[in-house]
Amino acid sequence: MLTRPDVAIVGAGPVGLAIAWRCATRGLRVAVHDPAPGSGASRVAAGMLAPVAEAYFGERELTGLLTASAARWPDFAAALAAATGREFGYRTDGTLVVGLTGDDLAEARRLWSYQQGLGLPISALRPSQLRDREPALTPRLRGGAVAPGDHQVDPRRLVDALRVAAERAGVTLVPGPVTRLAELAAPVVVVAAGCGAAALTGLPVRPVKGQVLRLRAPDHRPPGFRHVIRGYADGESVYLVPRDSGEVVVGATVEERADTEVTAGAVLRLLRAAVDLVPELAEYALVEATAGLRPGTPDNAPILGPLPGRPGVLAATGHHRHGIVLTPVTADLITDLIVTGEPDPLLTPFTADRFH
Amino acid sequence: MLTRPDVAIVGAGPVGLAIAWRCATRGLRVAVHDPAPGSGASRVAAGMLAPVAEAYFGERELTGLLTASAARWPDFAAALAAATGREFGYRTDGTLVVGLTGDDLAEARRLWSYQQGLGLPISALRPSQLRDREPALTPRLRGGAVAPGDHQVDPRRLVDALRVAAERAGVTLVPGPVTRLAELAAPVVVVAAGCGAAALTGLPVRPVKGQVLRLRAPDHRPPGFRHVIRGYADGESVYLVPRDSGEVVVGATVEERADTEVTAGAVLRLLRAAVDLVPELAEYALVEATAGLRPGTPDNAPILGPLPGRPGVLAATGHHRHGIVLTPVTADLITDLIVTGEPDPLLTPFTADRFH
Repeated sequence: MLTRPDVAIVGAGPVGLAIAWRCATRGLRVAVHDPAPGSGASRVAAGMLAPVAEAYFGERELTGLLTASAARWPDFAAALAAATGREFGYRTDGTLVVGLTGDDLAEARRLWSYQQGLGLPISALRPSQLRDREPALTPRLRGGAVAPGDHQVDPRRLVDALRVAAERAGVTLVPGPVTRLAELAAPVVVVAAGCGAAALTGLPVRPVKGQVLRLRAPDHRPPGFRHVIRGYADGESVYLVPRDSGEVVVGATVEERADTEVTAGAVLRLLRAAVDLVPELAEYALVEATAGLRPGTPDNAPILGPLPGRPGVLAATGHHRHGIVLTPVTADLITDLIVTGEPDPLLTPFTADRFH
Repeated sequence: MLTRPDVAIVGAGPVGLAIAWRCATRGLRVAVHDPAPGSGASRVAAGMLAPVAEAYFGERELTGLLTASAARWPDFAAALAAATGREFGYRTDGTLVVGLTGDDLAEARRLWSYQQGLGLPISALRPSQLRDREPALTPRLRGGAVAPGDHQVDPRRLVDALRVAAERAGVTLVPGPVTRLAELAAPVVVVAAGCGAAALTGLPVRPVKGQVLRLRAPDHRPPGFRHVIRGYADGESVYLVPRDSGEVVVGATVEERADTEVTAGAVLRLLRAAVDLVPELAEYALVEATAGLRPGTPDNAPILGPLPGRPGVLAATGHHRHGIVLTPVTADLITDLIVTGEPDPLLTPFTADRFH
């Protein structure tokens, strides 16, 4: 890059790359700094686009942002596919929420009743209806629900496609690390560095460890189920995300730890719940067991927009467990803010000043 | 190697390397052929030297050979340490046999009563006595036994040490593969190729898949127990082998399959039994999940000695689950046969002609 960029972005995860792509298509010169693109939380993420099944008590504003972003996903995916010719595992088969025991079902139902109360599209199903949709589910199931609008994407392939889209739009990827924002000679700096945002900005972003498994169906078959399955099994909460490649992602722990060690206990709990819910998974290969660090915030919601007292610096971090679903809305809101200078009202609950 | 060797050995696992080392110290010129030394069953093996806890119904002659070889292990280990200055995890802490439930204990007791009936050193212990010896054991244990003479070694480090000993004694390692025994220009050929023996000789050696995990204690500590633990837990049989490095080997499945895929179901069963028996293992890192192929024979016993109709060709294969414990006796018997031409009577039950 011979000329100074208009926008320097720290972090080439999905959020940073999507902002870069969107800004470049609006005519801005953009540089993205990352020594290892796609190596953060997105590498471990399952890629559920699940605003409904992820709507939790006391997180009403976050639920609104999740829903808004999920609604943007079809257009975002179409634009990304058109810009790159890439396929990135975007699937709209829906999500089944299932409870193994009576206690599990009660816990799941308590949550989906809350979600229904918010007007979100989720409907209870009897065990026979669940197994009609997915015969691979265990006959022991006590019940569940379907959230037809909760979809999925493959985060690793998403990052690859976003990188291609960004580079085709003229974005420069700079492979060096950034240790101080003052190094960056651009009028606008976006910190999309995930957990790295804390050291760069002082924002209250902390690592939240997640352990995740990747299984693979035997004989190069696709998995024996098509819905994302969010299950409650003997008190464990687990999700199973099937991909056309035969991969099934099984996740995830949520641990207040900053290491990335895979532990025997976590693998045991994830596998037990997975096999209890879908018995045929016992015969799948275990191809990967990894741990990643999500960028968590005090209220579990992202930090989006201007950094108080740091003119020209914007935050797009703290996406915690929701970085993939929130990528389109984050890219749109931050790009609009950069281009127009006017913050969208959607940003208001998520700006950094809420922690002051 | 400028001159033709006296002995060509196919296979640089522990058995092949130990025979090579012993032959070389007796003045023979030896070449060992293997494209990937130590990459067979020994790479996955746990290294239990457990003739007592491995004495099964109907395998009386094999038990005799296991006992004879275990009795040679102290001298073998001392000679190998003296020849190399290497340490290879040889430990004599003994083995605890434990049963989690009443049914598990009944199964374990049925076996150790048989072992006692053979005069083998194994004594019943109450749960409190087991936990006095190993406080890391779960308080749920129903009972067990101690086999003080059942020891352990680290097979990967054993192979490294044997390779050093062999090379120091003048053995030549030839890295190419052997596809036909006729390629080898030596008056004596020893087939110590594990599962590869079948294709080279037509012997009834088949692959028996075993899946094994390696855990590691947190914070570079040694594991919280010193005995090898052979446990029966809710119908699963599992062994736990602690090493000074912090590693704990958890094994192993026994499957009539020839693939080396790690499956979710096997990892689940091994981890569940391990954590049920020693709860602190849940906090250990899961550092490796692998599968290997043991060379099995129709009667589970090795094939040792002359190959019928193939003058000059000796077999030292088919060690199945017992390759590490049987390494000293195999090396001694085969070396003596080569040097003296006289078969030791110990060989008689294990020659290849028993399958004709």
